[in-house]
Amino acid sequence: MIPRDHHLTIGSLLFEGLDQIDLTGPFEVLSQIPNSTFSVYAKTTDPVRDIHGLRLSPDAPLADAPQLDVLHVPGGYGQEALMADEEVLGWVRAQAEGAKAVLSVCTGALICGAAGLLRGRRATTHWSALHLLPYFGATVVPERVVVDGNWVFAGGVTAGIDGALQLAAELRGVPAAQRIQLAIQYAPEPPFDSGTPETAPADVLAAARDGVAELTARREATARRVAEQLGVALTT
Amino acid sequence: MIPRDHHLTIGSLLFEGLDQIDLTGPFEVLSQIPNSTFSVYAKTTDPVRDIHGLRLSPDAPLADAPQLDVLHVPGGYGQEALMADEEVLGWVRAQAEGAKAVLSVCTGALICGAAGLLRGRRATTHWSALHLLPYFGATVVPERVVVDGNWVFAGGVTAGIDGALQLAAELRGVPAAQRIQLAIQYAPEPPFDSGTPETAPADVLAAARDGVAELTARREATARRVAEQLGVALTT
Repeated sequence: MIPRDHHLTIGSLLFEGLDQIDLTGPFEVLSQIPNSTFSVYAKTTDPVRDIHGLRLSPDAPLADAPQLDVLHVPGGYGQEALMADEEVLGWVRAQAEGAKAVLSVCTGALICGAAGLLRGRRATTHWSALHLLPYFGATVVPERVVVDGNWVFAGGVTAGIDGALQLAAELRGVPAAQRIQLAIQYAPEPPFDSGTPETAPADVLAAARDGVAELTARREATARRVAEQLGVALTT
Repeated sequence: MIPRDHHLTIGSLLFEGLDQIDLTGPFEVLSQIPNSTFSVYAKTTDPVRDIHGLRLSPDAPLADAPQLDVLHVPGGYGQEALMADEEVLGWVRAQAEGAKAVLSVCTGALICGAAGLLRGRRATTHWSALHLLPYFGATVVPERVVVDGNWVFAGGVTAGIDGALQLAAELRGVPAAQRIQLAIQYAPEPPFDSGTPETAPADVLAAARDGVAELTARREATARRVAEQLGVALTT
């Protein structure tokens, strides 16, 4: 836990083509941590669009961010365009190294991987990208939330809410996290049981895999290239 | 269900001081409905800030919205400022009357109530505002998601995700909703059981009630004024 009188600076990476709830889910939780400030950073101050078109605006450019106490890295299809972007990767690397905690959500883990930050870590990501984590030197832990040292990894998309609540508890204690959970009335009741490859009907899973097949192939080619650059030896 | 070849126009009301996940949760779900377009509308095209400071931008001003097939009304503290705003209330009223479906999330129900749309409806809202629904002529149903005719009411904040999945199924069938649920890996695992007044620890609930006491008093005064205007007779 961080002392309550320490003002926590929390910040997210925002980029074109992110999956917005990877950012807005954790924002909803972490922005309510007592004695904290949550800001959103991007390459420029222009608004960006998420995969499905929602327009979000950063608070400041990357270069203006102070050393953050908590770094949050969301994912989404737009992650692919950042996998060799040294401006972004360098920022993520430097922030992660100085941060007290890092929250990786969904395929934000691939960005962290390209920044060389996953070596030796136990990690998770969106179900469609789990098999890519070893290219970055990580060990796959196929759970919804994985805590590894001062890193919290959340699985796909909405897992960011669970991961952020876990992180809020680590930062300010369980009662603070419970109060946030009550404020956001987070007692989920999904009307169907189709949220994982294990529980989804077979045809629903097949259609979902089809829908991301091309992207997954591109992500795998990128991951292989990164593995080579990082010198990660793959046993497969 | 709406025929699959009918392109669905879906739209949210965006306003200063909304609780962003009231909007972004349902956006995440409904924007992935096949053959649909999701747009965000506000009084002007300026970006707005949510309660905790996230900056979101509308796609167009209210006046430019076509008749929507699906109207989505989020809530948040900023709802209070709209309770006598005839520009917004008139837009909500007209859109709701022409829409095939309406999704009210959290204290978005109070906005719908001020627009005179809750009379005779079974409805829900954030736990801290449930007692206000009768002022608008509604019957309180203290469940997470309440379906009343072509209206779907979601309770507080994160309940919008559950409500939107339910609505997606009503609009395009259960398999379409299941596929969205899988894409967003919505198999929630809250780390604590503090998401409702019934399950939260007593001191956590007391602190949360304290935190919204002043706002709740203001909301109640407003609701009494609206009840008078609407001619809603209260039995208490």
